[in-house]
Amino acid sequence: MKKLKRSSRLIDMTQYLIARPHTLVPLTYFADRYQSAKSSISEDLAIIKELFEDEDVGELNTLAGAAGGVKYIPKVSETRSLQMIEAVCRQLSQPERILPGGYLYMSDLLGMPSSLNEVGKIFASAFSGREFDCVMTVETKGIPLAYVVASYLNLPVVIVRRDNKVTEGSAVSINYVSGSSKRIQTMSLGRRALADGSSVLIIDDFMKAGGTIRGMMDLLQEFNAKVGGVGVLVEARDEQQEETLVEDYVSLAVLSKVDIKNRTVIVKPGNYFEKE
Amino acid sequence: MKKLKRSSRLIDMTQYLIARPHTLVPLTYFADRYQSAKSSISEDLAIIKELFEDEDVGELNTLAGAAGGVKYIPKVSETRSLQMIEAVCRQLSQPERILPGGYLYMSDLLGMPSSLNEVGKIFASAFSGREFDCVMTVETKGIPLAYVVASYLNLPVVIVRRDNKVTEGSAVSINYVSGSSKRIQTMSLGRRALADGSSVLIIDDFMKAGGTIRGMMDLLQEFNAKVGGVGVLVEARDEQQEETLVEDYVSLAVLSKVDIKNRTVIVKPGNYFEKE
Repeated sequence: MKKLKRSSRLIDMTQYLIARPHTLVPLTYFADRYQSAKSSISEDLAIIKELFEDEDVGELNTLAGAAGGVKYIPKVSETRSLQMIEAVCRQLSQPERILPGGYLYMSDLLGMPSSLNEVGKIFASAFSGREFDCVMTVETKGIPLAYVVASYLNLPVVIVRRDNKVTEGSAVSINYVSGSSKRIQTMSLGRRALADGSSVLIIDDFMKAGGTIRGMMDLLQEFNAKVGGVGVLVEARDEQQEETLVEDYVSLAVLSKVDIKNRTVIVKPGNYFEKE
Repeated sequence: MKKLKRSSRLIDMTQYLIARPHTLVPLTYFADRYQSAKSSISEDLAIIKELFEDEDVGELNTLAGAAGGVKYIPKVSETRSLQMIEAVCRQLSQPERILPGGYLYMSDLLGMPSSLNEVGKIFASAFSGREFDCVMTVETKGIPLAYVVASYLNLPVVIVRRDNKVTEGSAVSINYVSGSSKRIQTMSLGRRALADGSSVLIIDDFMKAGGTIRGMMDLLQEFNAKVGGVGVLVEARDEQQEETLVEDYVSLAVLSKVDIKNRTVIVKPGNYFEKE
């Protein structure tokens, strides 16, 4: 790369870091890339760090020492997260979203990169302090969300199938009871999809009684893997509902009521925003 | 926002534009955001534009006039694309990827945000000159790829299901013949997922005889929608194979041979890199 002026260097460092979240970039890499002194690079990073924090882009963590460098941690403040989720809740409260069976139509939101990126960044903030080896979800609707979260956390995504497809090779299958329908179902995961002993972040778009997520947790045991965290975009909390099958999870929104007769839906911010 | 120095302004404009590909940002927006003269904003954008082009980040298109503004178009040069795809081909040529039936294990690649982002950006470059209303794929493995492409093109994603799930509301189903297995299968799409007359970019991870993509094309007719483009990551080209059911498509890689006996796989760059 040719020698750059500070202005161009700042632009390049910004795009470079944003494209590589949760990745340690040694200062020497930037020093070589721009043929600049490490002291100049450090000054540049201080300017970027300040702007990223002011504008809710995220944090720049600098590690000193020989193995030191800089790491971009995508993060969004709680205030901004709550604003974004309140907008999502307003959208989800539209009565035309009510589907037979008390379900909510969410596919449009889950298919829109701009909303997914916002929601994904909130999850990435919520889980940024923990270490994971991968993000797991079950097909189908939660996949884009899981992918976005994984992308911000720089982790691979593992997709659990509801059948056993030939293109996954040999697989481990388990049966689980869907909490809401009480039916026995199957889910499976390719043997080579998950390394032994992995710490896994489970992400899904919707949780009712928690049977599906409980199923993924049971599946993890077959791989000697452990649940490092659980995040759901919308949890349904019903007054008559028995206890959910999952105890420790982060939800961004709560669907507290779907009244099919009067066509009203109540969606509020989830437990991530509840203050202890 | 407080008044910023040029250095901070450049960082902020870079992160702002990268987060909003294919979106027209009026110059007045930046002028107001930074309390700066439009002439300064134009100078800033010229610096960003030059760096983005030099570093293969993409193009900045500036539209003059009252309704003018700037649009970031993610794009990667053909040289760089070819380097990235050659690396993908090398990975896919590992004999341990061979699965029974002559399939290739690709789930790891399709679950890794860094590789997906590269591949997604190549597709976004390939289709950047055309106008679409959405990106469509069929569950399951192609979903993350479709999402990434849609994200770079700033388009919603529509997921075709292989069953008819309650959470999609009323749906249109069609039968299609899977080209390779010759079995009759069903795919369906929720009525409200796609607006009448949409122009659709179909993205999938793998194409053998093309039956699944042909199925999606037939499904589009039921919505009076049209195929604006087709992109597949890997196409399988077999010497004995009859003609593929899809004529006009972009492939990034070609699987030309899977020899199960000798455990060899040949994967080469696809038709996107073929010169007329």
